[in-house]
Amino acid sequence: MNQEVRLRVKHVVISAVVIVFLFFYSLSSGRDCESEESRSNVVAERWAAGQGRDAFLPNRKGPTIYAVTPTYARPVQKAELTRLSHVIRLVPNIFWVIVEDATQTSPLVTNLLSRSGLQDRSVQLFAKTPTNFKLQGKDPNWLKPRGVEQRNEALKWIRKHLKRDAMGNGDAKVSHSLVYFMDDDNTYSTELFEEISKIERGKVGVWPVGLVGGLMVEKPVLNRDGLVLGFNSAWKPERPFPLDMAGFAISSDLLLDNPQAQFSYEVERGYQESEILRHLTIAHDMQPLANQCKNVLVWHTRTETPKLDAEKTLQKSGKKSNDGMEV
Amino acid sequence: MNQEVRLRVKHVVISAVVIVFLFFYSLSSGRDCESEESRSNVVAERWAAGQGRDAFLPNRKGPTIYAVTPTYARPVQKAELTRLSHVIRLVPNIFWVIVEDATQTSPLVTNLLSRSGLQDRSVQLFAKTPTNFKLQGKDPNWLKPRGVEQRNEALKWIRKHLKRDAMGNGDAKVSHSLVYFMDDDNTYSTELFEEISKIERGKVGVWPVGLVGGLMVEKPVLNRDGLVLGFNSAWKPERPFPLDMAGFAISSDLLLDNPQAQFSYEVERGYQESEILRHLTIAHDMQPLANQCKNVLVWHTRTETPKLDAEKTLQKSGKKSNDGMEV
Repeated sequence: MNQEVRLRVKHVVISAVVIVFLFFYSLSSGRDCESEESRSNVVAERWAAGQGRDAFLPNRKGPTIYAVTPTYARPVQKAELTRLSHVIRLVPNIFWVIVEDATQTSPLVTNLLSRSGLQDRSVQLFAKTPTNFKLQGKDPNWLKPRGVEQRNEALKWIRKHLKRDAMGNGDAKVSHSLVYFMDDDNTYSTELFEEISKIERGKVGVWPVGLVGGLMVEKPVLNRDGLVLGFNSAWKPERPFPLDMAGFAISSDLLLDNPQAQFSYEVERGYQESEILRHLTIAHDMQPLANQCKNVLVWHTRTETPKLDAEKTLQKSGKKSNDGMEV
Repeated sequence: MNQEVRLRVKHVVISAVVIVFLFFYSLSSGRDCESEESRSNVVAERWAAGQGRDAFLPNRKGPTIYAVTPTYARPVQKAELTRLSHVIRLVPNIFWVIVEDATQTSPLVTNLLSRSGLQDRSVQLFAKTPTNFKLQGKDPNWLKPRGVEQRNEALKWIRKHLKRDAMGNGDAKVSHSLVYFMDDDNTYSTELFEEISKIERGKVGVWPVGLVGGLMVEKPVLNRDGLVLGFNSAWKPERPFPLDMAGFAISSDLLLDNPQAQFSYEVERGYQESEILRHLTIAHDMQPLANQCKNVLVWHTRTETPKLDAEKTLQKSGKKSNDGMEV
């Protein structure tokens, strides 16, 4: 073993280069994989610490989408939110802003967020609709505006949050993000959020919505250059923006630049969308999405109110089928 | 470069050993990661080849759950199936058996499966309900049994498939799997499938269902030893098994051992569940799940039929809002 070998310097150098290359190559492919696996933990920590949110979303394909969901207690509430939580779990760049129509947050919503693993990318707010604006007993559901108080509370939270975030980054410029109003009973495809992620700074994105306003599809009408000319709506087409809440999302810098933009009790039925959008854009400036507004990626579904006749009979004798159970 | 260096053999050998060790170590950690990434492709191939299915499900936490979904063309169909596809995407041990009430498979369902990435763990079947059993125009939806033809077609496929699978494994014993009837408008939590995965060979699992039969919860009633005594149903409690289709799942060996077990047009309304279960189990032998039947993990939600008045008006002038669009 103490013998000597003689090698040409040329061969030693070439061998060393090959070995070093192979070593670093294999190491680096190992490291890529590791970072992929541990990224979700990093995200949770970063979100929790309130720092650098945008940069650390797992598998993110776009900017943060603040999905604003007003909700209220009723028999189907947990079912609706469960269904909605599934699409949110599948789209990692959504941050869920749930606002309950109540004087405090409910354990039902808290449990739902925790059991679906969404605590770290959600916030649970509340804002009670004033009694004089609340639907009474047999009022048809279109009589009074719904979700005004809750959506405005969400806008307030988002504006504050974005400003704090920008300051936290030591940067005057707020990082690019989007705001979408996502009701608890509509149906959203995961592909919709890929489209929303394409919305540019300073823009409002628009796309078709299925099964709304008495039509199979309500959609933006584009001219040959792909600019939004108007909408095909049959219901109240005279509205400044005759489209559904599910049919647009907003670049959040527009909300910071226009602090007066919000929803209102003072407007006629069907005018909430126009009320916020009139501060932010004109039709021509909207960004058409979903394959030039040819694809339907969201549907205005409605869930039936369940008939609980047998439950009412039970209640008369002081019983309930769901005693001690959360439904 | 043509100069020579002199090295001791000892040093050369030690260096070589260290280099070889480092190289293989880094390579092997790379390989672990690679196999994780490519596993889904392997699964796809194995599923497609019809071999060793159970062993290759990605991230599987339990046996394969064959989820049987009868469906039919209507305005909300795509929305409903989209929503349902989300929970299926989140539960990797579900294999989705969709059966269309039609004389052939539809592009709508094919596209949906492909766009949701579920082609490799689904099968698209069809079975047309005979005209004399089909609901007509204004018939209330409970008048005639629904889904009989489709669920029986699915059972036929599953039985054949399981037998072929067992033969392919060179094993007379069929690998453990489960069958669940999953309607396209109900709401299912991901936790429900963790419970279904616990069902043992030879057992039918049962659990509560929310918002069904006029009650907040329909549920199995257990005795002190945790055995199923009966059910709390208010609607037709005299049925042999007064529970909803969403409230049970079956170990598939029971279906092979009892080839006569299926659904029927010959039974009274509300008796389909009893019709199949009477061949397979008695109440006492059922396996109570969902925390001893205290948790509600599935809800019998119903989606409203959308009002398409404006669309009908359009159609009178030969137009449609969804021209060339799939809604």
